[in-house]
Amino acid sequence: MNEGHYYEDFAVGQKFHSRPFRIEKDRMIAFAEEFDPQPQHVSERTAATSQFGQLVASGWHTAAVSMRLFVNEALPPLAGGGQGVGVEALAWPHPVRPGDELRVETEVVATRVSRSRRDKGLVTVRNTTLNQNDEVVQTMSTTFMVPRRHDA
Amino acid sequence: MNEGHYYEDFAVGQKFHSRPFRIEKDRMIAFAEEFDPQPQHVSERTAATSQFGQLVASGWHTAAVSMRLFVNEALPPLAGGGQGVGVEALAWPHPVRPGDELRVETEVVATRVSRSRRDKGLVTVRNTTLNQNDEVVQTMSTTFMVPRRHDA
Repeated sequence: MNEGHYYEDFAVGQKFHSRPFRIEKDRMIAFAEEFDPQPQHVSERTAATSQFGQLVASGWHTAAVSMRLFVNEALPPLAGGGQGVGVEALAWPHPVRPGDELRVETEVVATRVSRSRRDKGLVTVRNTTLNQNDEVVQTMSTTFMVPRRHDA
Repeated sequence: MNEGHYYEDFAVGQKFHSRPFRIEKDRMIAFAEEFDPQPQHVSERTAATSQFGQLVASGWHTAAVSMRLFVNEALPPLAGGGQGVGVEALAWPHPVRPGDELRVETEVVATRVSRSRRDKGLVTVRNTTLNQNDEVVQTMSTTFMVPRRHDA
């Protein structure tokens, strides 16, 4: 039985990755209509005359899809569940277009025991989201809290 | 006719705000099932025994709702459309629960002309998302690019 990763199971330099996930145009537009209804995200006609030349995803849609790929696939299951603490340096260097196939690559960049909760550890990862042409569409660092082993 | 805000219409210290927006439990669960299916976000039963004691929203749902309130309400319409450049220091200091009423307060904290595109300016804002009890549920800073006036 896999009981999930504890704090002690993470180490700087570890890498994980997800499978590719296809961005469908209808879902891209629906997300933007609900959360980020700027013309380049919701109107094919307006987007055609924008600097992008076509519809592009809201960065928040890219972030949400990247979260899915990180939590569901890249990150090993966590013992007792993890808890996101915060995010640094979220950037979208290249636009996401309908039909793109995104994947997430994760690298552990820091680990430390929580100062306020000695039974928990904090793991910081750098997540890079790439498309089918290996162009980087999102970078971010995020820190999450995970239990330490009871015998630590 | 309101032609929208140009770079020159922003100044450090300006404040904007949205109306409140209610977080519905069904939508909270649906978002988490699609993007962030951790137990505390999707299962009322599991969440009841978690540190939160009840279902809490994915931070990415809070971020997406905050984006909606920022783009649709807090931020004045932009001339020629804006473009998000990146996000710094996204944090969730307090959980979001079903039925919470969230609002966004925006403050302009920096402005500068783009070095690479002289016809554009960069505006950095600090966005604070609060609930109905004035508890801060999200903080973040974001920078967006907006056209300068043609006669600048």
